[in-house]
Parts: sequence; C-alpha cells; structure tokens
Amino acid sequence: MTVLTDVDATIRRLREEVCRLHAELIRYELVVWTAGNVSARVPDRDLLVIKPSGVAYDQLTPDNMVVCDLHGRVVDGAHAPSSDTDAQAYVYRHLPHVGGVVHTHSTYATAWASRGEAIPCVLTMMADEFGGDIPVGPFALIGDDSIGRGIVQALSQSRSPAVLMRNHGVFSVGPTARAAVKAAVMCEDVARTVHIARQLGHPLPIDERDVDSLYDRYQNVYGQR
Amino acid sequence: MTVLTDVDATIRRLREEVCRLHAELIRYELVVWTAGNVSARVPDRDLLVIKPSGVAYDQLTPDNMVVCDLHGRVVDGAHAPSSDTDAQAYVYRHLPHVGGVVHTHSTYATAWASRGEAIPCVLTMMADEFGGDIPVGPFALIGDDSIGRGIVQALSQSRSPAVLMRNHGVFSVGPTARAAVKAAVMCEDVARTVHIARQLGHPLPIDERDVDSLYDRYQNVYGQR
Amino acid sequence: MTVLTDVDATIRRLREEVCRLHAELIRYELVVWTAGNVSARVPDRDLLVIKPSGVAYDQLTPDNMVVCDLHGRVVDGAHAPSSDTDAQAYVYRHLPHVGGVVHTHSTYATAWASRGEAIPCVLTMMADEFGGDIPVGPFALIGDDSIGRGIVQALSQSRSPAVLMRNHGVFSVGPTARAAVKAAVMCEDVARTVHIARQLGHPLPIDERDVDSLYDRYQNVYGQR
Amino acid sequence: MTVLTDVDATIRRLREEVCRLHAELIRYELVVWTAGNVSARVPDRDLLVIKPSGVAYDQLTPDNMVVCDLHGRVVDGAHAPSSDTDAQAYVYRHLPHVGGVVHTHSTYATAWASRGEAIPCVLTMMADEFGGDIPVGPFALIGDDSIGRGIVQALSQSRSPAVLMRNHGVFSVGPTARAAVKAAVMCEDVARTVHIARQLGHPLPIDERDVDSLYDRYQNVYGQR
Repeated sequence: MTVLTDVDATIRRLREEVCRLHAELIRYELVVWTAGNVSARVPDRDLLVIKPSGVAYDQLTPDNMVVCDLHGRVVDGAHAPSSDTDAQAYVYRHLPHVGGVVHTHSTYATAWASRGEAIPCVLTMMADEFGGDIPVGPFALIGDDSIGRGIVQALSQSRSPAVLMRNHGVFSVGPTARAAVKAAVMCEDVARTVHIARQLGHPLPIDERDVDSLYDRYQNVYGQR
Repeated sequence: MTVLTDVDATIRRLREEVCRLHAELIRYELVVWTAGNVSARVPDRDLLVIKPSGVAYDQLTPDNMVVCDLHGRVVDGAHAPSSDTDAQAYVYRHLPHVGGVVHTHSTYATAWASRGEAIPCVLTMMADEFGGDIPVGPFALIGDDSIGRGIVQALSQSRSPAVLMRNHGVFSVGPTARAAVKAAVMCEDVARTVHIARQLGHPLPIDERDVDSLYDRYQNVYGQR
Repeated sequence: MTVLTDVDATIRRLREEVCRLHAELIRYELVVWTAGNVSARVPDRDLLVIKPSGVAYDQLTPDNMVVCDLHGRVVDGAHAPSSDTDAQAYVYRHLPHVGGVVHTHSTYATAWASRGEAIPCVLTMMADEFGGDIPVGPFALIGDDSIGRGIVQALSQSRSPAVLMRNHGVFSVGPTARAAVKAAVMCEDVARTVHIARQLGHPLPIDERDVDSLYDRYQNVYGQR
Repeated sequence: MTVLTDVDATIRRLREEVCRLHAELIRYELVVWTAGNVSARVPDRDLLVIKPSGVAYDQLTPDNMVVCDLHGRVVDGAHAPSSDTDAQAYVYRHLPHVGGVVHTHSTYATAWASRGEAIPCVLTMMADEFGGDIPVGPFALIGDDSIGRGIVQALSQSRSPAVLMRNHGVFSVGPTARAAVKAAVMCEDVARTVHIARQLGHPLPIDERDVDSLYDRYQNVYGQR
C-alpha cells in the first residue's frame, strides 16, 4: 500500500486539473492541433506541472503531464515538457502570486500581437477582467530568458492578467491555472469584439475612473464569496 | 409528503426553465465563461428567478437558481444572484408585460454597442422580430438604477425587444424567458449579418411601410396558433 | 393491418427525409432558432412536404412535417406549414425539374443579398456548383406571388441553383431536397470565402471558358456514377 | 484463414488511417459537404490510398477508400477515386519524400488564393511550421498534369508544406498523411490570423534570421523525440 505524502497528493490533483483544463482551450477554440498549453505551480514547492510537448489534446492524461522545477528541468514524467516551459518557469520564479500560466495563439489576440498593438479598454467586460488595456510584450525567441522576461516586464506594468507577445501569441496568468484559463478565454473574446468594433469605426472610450470602478467591483464583489 | 402550493410549483417550473435556457446561450455562442444570464418573472408575484453570480454554465442546476424580489433581494437560494439582478428587477418593476430578461455580451451586438451605434433595419428578418432598428441605451455603471433606467427608456421608445447598452452588451426582453432568449439570439444574428454587409458597402434600405407590414405579419401570423 | 399505397409510402419517406435534412442546416450553421426550412416535391403528384411554421428544429419529427398542394393549401398535417410555403409552391408549379427547395438567412449570403449584389464567380468550387455568379432576386413581401415569381425569374436566367433575395436571404433548388440543401451549404461557403477575399483586395477573375469547363466536368464527371 | 502479405497489411492500415483523418478536416472546419480529401502513399510501392469521389464524410469507411497507382488508375476499390487523384499522384511521382497529400478549400486560405497572394510570414507559429511565406501556385484546370505540376513547382521553391492554388484552394503535403493534415490545419489557422491582422493595419515583419532560427528549432527540437 502506497502512502502518499501531502505534496504527492497535491501533484496528483494538479496533474488532473492541468490535463482537464486543456479541454477549455478547445471548447473556446483558442488552440489548434497542439499549439497551446496550461501549467500550474505546485504550492509551496519550486515545482510546476505542464503539458508534454507536441502531444495531441486527445492523448492527454494526468499521467503524461510533466513535473518540472522552476528552471524547466524535468523532475517527474516520461515525456519532454512543452517548449514553453522555460518561459513559464521564469514567470513562476519572478511573480510569486502567479499559480497558473496559459499560452495560446488564439486568432484575434494574435492578430493584435502581430501588429504590436495593445487592445484598448472599450468594453465594460474588459474593465472588469483586465482593468485597462491588454499590453504588448516584445518580440523574443525561444532559447534564453527573453520570452519570460518580456512577459514579466509587461505584466508588472499593468493590472491585466494577459499579455500579447509580439508576432507570437498570448500568455495569461492567474492565482490558479483555472483563473489563467479564464483570462485566456476573456482575452480572445474581447480581442474579437474590439477588432470587430474597429472594422466599422471607432469604439467610444470609457472614462478611466469608470474603468477603475468596474475593475474594483468585479474583483471584489462578482461571483460567490 | 410535501404539498406544493401553486406558487411553489410555478417557481419549481421556472427554476428548471431558467436553468435550461442557459444552454441556448451556449448553443448560439452568445456567452463565454460565466458572462451572460437569463431570468424569468414569477407571474402574479413580485418575484423573479435568475442565475447565480459567477457560476459556470456546466454547474447550473434548477436548485442553484436564485429567487429574488423585484428589488433584487434574495428570497430563496443559497447563492448570490447574478450581478445584473438589480437591473433586471428594475425592468420587471417598470415593464409589466415583460416575463423574461436576458443579458449577454454577444460579439457582434457588443461591437455595435461599443461604438454607440443602433443596428439599422435592413433585413426582412430584422423587420419581423424587431420592427425597426435595434436601439442603443446609455453608458451606465452597476451600483444604482442607471442600467435598469437606461434599458427601460430605450425599450419604451421602440418596438425592439433588445437594446444595446453602450460599451457593454445586450439586454433583451419578452413575454417569457424563452422569448427573451429568442430575441437575444436573433439580435446577435442580425448584428453579425448587417456588420458583414457593411464591410463591403451599404445595405439597401427597406421602406418603412414594408417594415411595418413584415412586423405585423410575423407577430400575428407566423408560427402555430 | 394498413395497406400503404405507393404514394403513401413515398410521402412517408419524404417526411423522414425532409425532417432529417434540417439537421444539415444546423450542422453548417445556416439557420438560427426556427429561421429556415426544407421542402420536397412528391414526384408525379401536385404535392409538397415542408417544415411546420415556427417549430424548433429539436422538435421536428416526420409526423409534424406538413403535406400541401402546389398552391400551399394543407392536405395532411396537424400544423400550419412554413410561411414560405406559398413561395416554394410557386417554384414547384413553374419549374418542373425542381424536386427540392431550401430557404435560409445564412449570414454571408444574406449580407450580399442586403446590398443587392450578386456573388462573382471567382472560385473553381463556385464554377463547379453554380456555373457562374449567384444572382440576386427582387425585394418582395410575403402575401402574394411576388417572392415565388422573383425566385423563378432569377433562376431562369442563370445556371445557379441558388438565388439571393434582396434584403432577405437565400432560396436554393435541386432535383432532390438533398441537392437543394447542398446548394444552400455551398452558397454560404462561397459567399463567405469571396467576402473575405474582397476584404483585402480583389479576387482574380476566372475566364468564362474555364468556368464552362469546370461546370461541365463537375456536373457530368464528379462523384459516383 | 487469410494470410495477409506485408503490403496487404500496410494497405489495410492506410485505409483506416486515411479514412479516419477526414474527421480532422471536419473538426477544424476545413471542408463542407464533400469538398476536400486526404491521401497516403503506400511506402515502397507505386500506390496511393485516397477518398472516393463525392461520398459524404459520414459515409466514409476503410473499405470504400480507393487504392490507385501513381498514374491515378484504380487498383483496388469499388468506387471512383477523388477527382483530385491525378494531381496527387503527380505529386507522389515527383516528390519522393512526400507520404501524404491533403486538399481543401478552407475559407481564409482560399481567400488568399483567389487574390493570388502568398501569405506573408509574420507569426512565429508560421515560421515554425512553414519556414517562410505560404506560396501561390498557378491557375490550372483538372484534365491534364497542370494542377500536379503547379503544386510540385511551387513546393520545390519553398520550405512550406502547403501551397495556395490560384482561385482554387490548398494542397498540403507531409512525410505522412497525418503531417499533411497538420499542415492543412495550420495553413488555415495562419491564413485567418494574418487576414485579421491585415484588416486593421500591417503586421510587423519578422527578421529572416529569426524565421530560420524558429523553423530550425521547431523541425528539430519540438515534440517528443
């Protein structure tokens, strides 16, 4: 009979949660083929749980999720981890309040990213969730810390839990992996609505104090307490 | 053995109906995550049944719907009601013919709303259901009666069962919750078609007498009698 | 024991086929709520089988399909027939090669219709199925023969099995109801692709002899013989 | 008891794989009705396995796939093969590294094709999979080698596994049929994102050395080794 330590049980639960959350990326059409992933921090440990690289969403199981340390080195798992692991590990190392990270190339958000344009905050729903514009991070290649640094820098200067990485796609964060998935879903939704609004003219601005008021209520009153 | 009064049985039926109608918002892709809701008036009572706040659509059951009075105070239910409850209660208080209210941030309608532009009546299907343009209501924050007042004012000056609230989204009404859902579905459908028509030029206008004639037939002849 | 005459058996089969084909309108997202329908001619009889008016697609059964004569009068069925029955009956009366008719308000095709613009034949797939541009018919109200006349006139001057009725939507025809559904599906598909092509410039024209050659091959060689 | 030779077993496996891969074309909405197909080369034999012509995707079974030689003549199968068989056979004859070919008329890619415009490489995901722009091939009619020649010529001058055939649609290739399907899926995804990016301005270019670096990593490091 196996005795699970607390951390083993937590990792087990996170393997299941991270695996299952990929279904939300598909449901909201944020990803095609294998192009997007979810990770979660193991609380109070310098570890994260992430999707294996290049494995089809249909083939994901809790067991093929990969456990890495916060420098992206595999600690437990038979597969190579997502090629975004280093960038996400950097985010966990530098933003202690982040419990989950999501990466997608969702269509409308990536279109803004390819022009290097922030999404302006012209919807109450955007003020609620993002507290202002969704910012743009720099162009960066995989291979060193530059993607991670770009994400952390952009997020640190904003209330937004999502950042558009130039010519690339979206990284979103949250206190949990589920909250990061929600931010990715909302990011694509507002990216699409504001794009469509802009096709036939100019959305009306929202006063900054109203943005603050909407953000404050949504973060503190919305939902079940 | 429990003896249900008539009003208990009615509330039971409306809990089931309101819960089930959220599936139509998903089917027609009018909502993401938890961003949209349905409510119904309890006939001949100063009560309404509405979605709980911030609860995922997959988790909705007849039992977690919330019963409120027409000032938005919870009468029966373990959850906090939708944060749109006050606005919808205002609508029920001031528009006695309304039996159901729906709120969404559906993409194309919200794009028109963000520009503060009414959707012009250039489709026979729009004349049928809306009897003219779909009007715009004011920008308003949650926290007092301003959303409710904006909805009631805009709807009172129009035959349309839907209104685009500026920078926000859609509120639709009907004699039943199901009719309000239909109006929300049709609103997004015509918002999309007219948007797409406008991308490559200008839709031809429909003569006002023809709009009247189409509206009259659809309201009085269409469907099963 | 009931003895079915041949015509009874044919009507039974057509009730099933017409009912089932509505699922294709949903699968290809050509319709919302109850806004679209399919009918079939009863071969060698002055009869047609059509969807009941305003009944949800989820509620359709072979039994609630309605059998009408070719002046739109109900011959068999407990429901009121589609409000498009008169227009479709007119088509069957005047175009003896037509065995099925479909009506939708599919988004992109209806956007072209609202501008009164024919869809130009700039795709090989369009040459295959439509043999040229998809034409526009006049604005017409329900209530007399004007919709039916408009459809017949437009189709008679074209090889296209689909016509865009101005400010309204699409009517498509075929030797069978299934072929008419295919034409409705292909019409929306090419309406969308040509619209998107036009958003960023101008599609290259296809030489008229090439259109003829593609049409001839597709009509005579494609598929199983 | 039947003894299967090795080649029989391989063909059996490819019939199953080719049949099953059509579901991916539907899942990613690359095809409507019967307009698109997958084929696979039989390794070390001058044979290919392809979809039958004009048969609905719902009706596909491993048994109704058609085995042809590399001049498009049926070797095994009760059905007429896809009318794209000659073009695909030409590709297998002239590009020995190709193990699978896919043809679609996917919406956004076909829109670029109808204007005769290559899709510019402005997304890291595009550099990864296509190693540069997605090129355009010539206008060509079915009936001789001209489609096959156009595909081979365009692919030979590019690292891209996909080509946009003018006014027509997409052909994609890969070492396996599954890889060719992946290229078709990614082609439509980047065609859509770059289209949308272009609607509101101009995507920022990616330096050619960065494109090379991204392509090299994705081809050699991404996924499971």
